[in-house]
Amino acid sequence: MSSFENVEVVKAANIYFDGKVTSRVVVFADGSKKTLGIMMPGDYEFGTDDNELMEIQAGEMDVLLPGESDWQAFAQGSSFEVPKNSNFKLKVKEVTDYCCSYF
Amino acid sequence: MSSFENVEVVKAANIYFDGKVTSRVVVFADGSKKTLGIMMPGDYEFGTDDNELMEIQAGEMDVLLPGESDWQAFAQGSSFEVPKNSNFKLKVKEVTDYCCSYF
Repeated sequence: MSSFENVEVVKAANIYFDGKVTSRVVVFADGSKKTLGIMMPGDYEFGTDDNELMEIQAGEMDVLLPGESDWQAFAQGSSFEVPKNSNFKLKVKEVTDYCCSYF
Repeated sequence: MSSFENVEVVKAANIYFDGKVTSRVVVFADGSKKTLGIMMPGDYEFGTDDNELMEIQAGEMDVLLPGESDWQAFAQGSSFEVPKNSNFKLKVKEVTDYCCSYF
């Protein structure tokens, strides 16, 4: 059972796209944050403020990263990075459990 | 921004009803647990192993508590208790963000 220890969890969820994407903010002792989230099947586009590392804990999605013309498939155990101040598109194939880190 | 401090968060989500109900387990220093979860609109039935306190952080649902014949409406800021080893039914009207405590 992998977990984050000695952290703070914001009680209220982040809710996007009518609940099809939701997440919880986890704050670490050094002030850094991660979000643990769920994406329901569907097509989404997100913008980044920071560099992001998206780790797929369960599920499956195709991703169109900024500047790319080909969609890439990501499944459980895989991850991808998105540069700050950019947009990326997702085609979520299966309910996806993800962890997003900001750096 | 209300949050839980000095806790452990299990990384993997609990996923029920094809992702329409999901939650994260938060473990406290005293070993007690809570879950922070999301329910999409829909009808659900749950069983309890422990006594549960369900706090509605956002959203709206009707609840049929064990032994009751009338549905009761619960919205943001309200809560209800469910005795252990019993079942309760939910009609979730709006995407609901909840916190469940076990005692």
